[in-house]
Amino acid sequence: MNDILILNETELRRAAPLNLEAIDTVESCFRALAGPGVVMPPILSMEMKEANGEVDVKTAYLPGMDSFAIKISPGFFDNPKIGLPSLSGMMVVLSARTGLVEALLLDNGYLTNVRTAAAGAVAARHLAPTVVETAGVIGAGVQARLQMIAAHLVRPFRHALVWSPDDALNQEAAAEITAATGALVRVAESAEEVVRQSHLVVTTTPARTPVLMADWLHPGLHITCMGSDQHGKNEIDPKAIAAADLYVCDRVSQCVALGELRSARAAGFLTDVTPPELGQIVTGAVAGRPSSEAITICDLTGTGAQDTAIANFARRRAVAVGAGAAFAR
Amino acid sequence: MNDILILNETELRRAAPLNLEAIDTVESCFRALAGPGVVMPPILSMEMKEANGEVDVKTAYLPGMDSFAIKISPGFFDNPKIGLPSLSGMMVVLSARTGLVEALLLDNGYLTNVRTAAAGAVAARHLAPTVVETAGVIGAGVQARLQMIAAHLVRPFRHALVWSPDDALNQEAAAEITAATGALVRVAESAEEVVRQSHLVVTTTPARTPVLMADWLHPGLHITCMGSDQHGKNEIDPKAIAAADLYVCDRVSQCVALGELRSARAAGFLTDVTPPELGQIVTGAVAGRPSSEAITICDLTGTGAQDTAIANFARRRAVAVGAGAAFAR
Repeated sequence: MNDILILNETELRRAAPLNLEAIDTVESCFRALAGPGVVMPPILSMEMKEANGEVDVKTAYLPGMDSFAIKISPGFFDNPKIGLPSLSGMMVVLSARTGLVEALLLDNGYLTNVRTAAAGAVAARHLAPTVVETAGVIGAGVQARLQMIAAHLVRPFRHALVWSPDDALNQEAAAEITAATGALVRVAESAEEVVRQSHLVVTTTPARTPVLMADWLHPGLHITCMGSDQHGKNEIDPKAIAAADLYVCDRVSQCVALGELRSARAAGFLTDVTPPELGQIVTGAVAGRPSSEAITICDLTGTGAQDTAIANFARRRAVAVGAGAAFAR
Repeated sequence: MNDILILNETELRRAAPLNLEAIDTVESCFRALAGPGVVMPPILSMEMKEANGEVDVKTAYLPGMDSFAIKISPGFFDNPKIGLPSLSGMMVVLSARTGLVEALLLDNGYLTNVRTAAAGAVAARHLAPTVVETAGVIGAGVQARLQMIAAHLVRPFRHALVWSPDDALNQEAAAEITAATGALVRVAESAEEVVRQSHLVVTTTPARTPVLMADWLHPGLHITCMGSDQHGKNEIDPKAIAAADLYVCDRVSQCVALGELRSARAAGFLTDVTPPELGQIVTGAVAGRPSSEAITICDLTGTGAQDTAIANFARRRAVAVGAGAAFAR
């Protein structure tokens, strides 16, 4: 039996930067999700109320891949009070032939950030208007910044708008997006301004009541919402979901329980419709953006398939450059 | 942030042998399961049919414990054909206060073996007749042997019977149990003989049709069945479950989906009864063995609570002797 390869965050950041290759990797996993043979069980989720913490475990088997990942994602929201990040975690890579542990990716959540931002870019590539002059983001944290940076790789916008309730964070986010994309980034007055002025909007909040209202929609708008990933979260006004010309799920079975589809259905919309999945848009089985004037929404809850895809990608790249430490079983 | 502690199988075997302390550790987790504050989500389970493999992920939060474990248990049943064990896996220990990964227990399934055998001993301690002259096991693999060794620590039987369809394995198991316990161990002619001659029986098979029939039951018998841990598995004749004076689950929510309770209910038995749990027997909230003549059955599907308990125990013991390697985040 071979040794177990251990890679730390620094090595994984070097091996798997957020670039077009990462986006293509995640796109290929959505393509696989639209085909046969994928196994993706429901997310294991555990809440620890005493510590204001939770942990999610995701996995998926993708046909043709020799390995699969099991991802452990803790979120402990009082951590910043003691100087620690809220999100951390790691991935375990196992052989899909023998089940043996092959690699431990001690990424502290980095690979999740990459694969989540990459999924946003896949959605933008297939659903946003061909030309995006202005992109906007509601939220200003790490994922807000990465979503804009990833989106810029597929829709090289010249202007961007950022808004969150935290102005210091907004300033930081604007500076970071400017540095990474070269776009002119401005802090908006409101979430409404972000939506009204942009043709590509990403929402990246932990909101439990909508932060994006139906009244603000306008022709030629694409929205990617990636904040809702638990029962009880809700970023998008249900009326906006109902008003969109096309609403797409990363995975229907997850969005109906954890995503915007849950709150939309609770409000009485889309109750007798099964929306298409992003993978079906990627393969062309379902048509993407209907017209330049259409309003489209893509709901991302985050899939174990993305974790398996990015873990395999990062590990392969790390091995190619000889990174990591070997640990005897 | 502290380093991550990495422990390998050899170190964990040394730190956490199957002894009374391990049994007491697992007993205390069943006690916790009967009280408030435990969080134990449904098991994440993924089947990979192409490779005749599966992986289960279990976890639990136990109040008062500073850490919790997430256990990854793969079972790839064609592995023996290429000289590898079917079962492997590891545990990740995380802080219950911050979610940070604290330790990686690369046990290759060893700690699962210990905590499973220890649960059998907890069941025997609280449910088997006070004096057990002869114990028996159906099955002859690793877990069959450990179940007998653990049972002997709480019910020091003088005779034991082993039966499985594989005679070479039976001989090996008999020799190993003899060596560990000093009991006189014999290979039985049949599963029926094991049950008829024993006052404590453990079933440790992956059976999908019963290997223990109701006709074989006799007064003063305790049965622990630990083989069924998936929808479709079934070791015990549903009529035997119905005939027992006391049927106890490790966790009702699991046994009803994965254990003998599932097949018993499918056969029309125990449909309007919620059985007691082992933790309730341990705390005394529910009475254990009703009389020396009673027939009792304990159904073990394996709980994430046991994993968290044994992981914390093994790690604490390993740290105390300075075992393991530190890995920078």
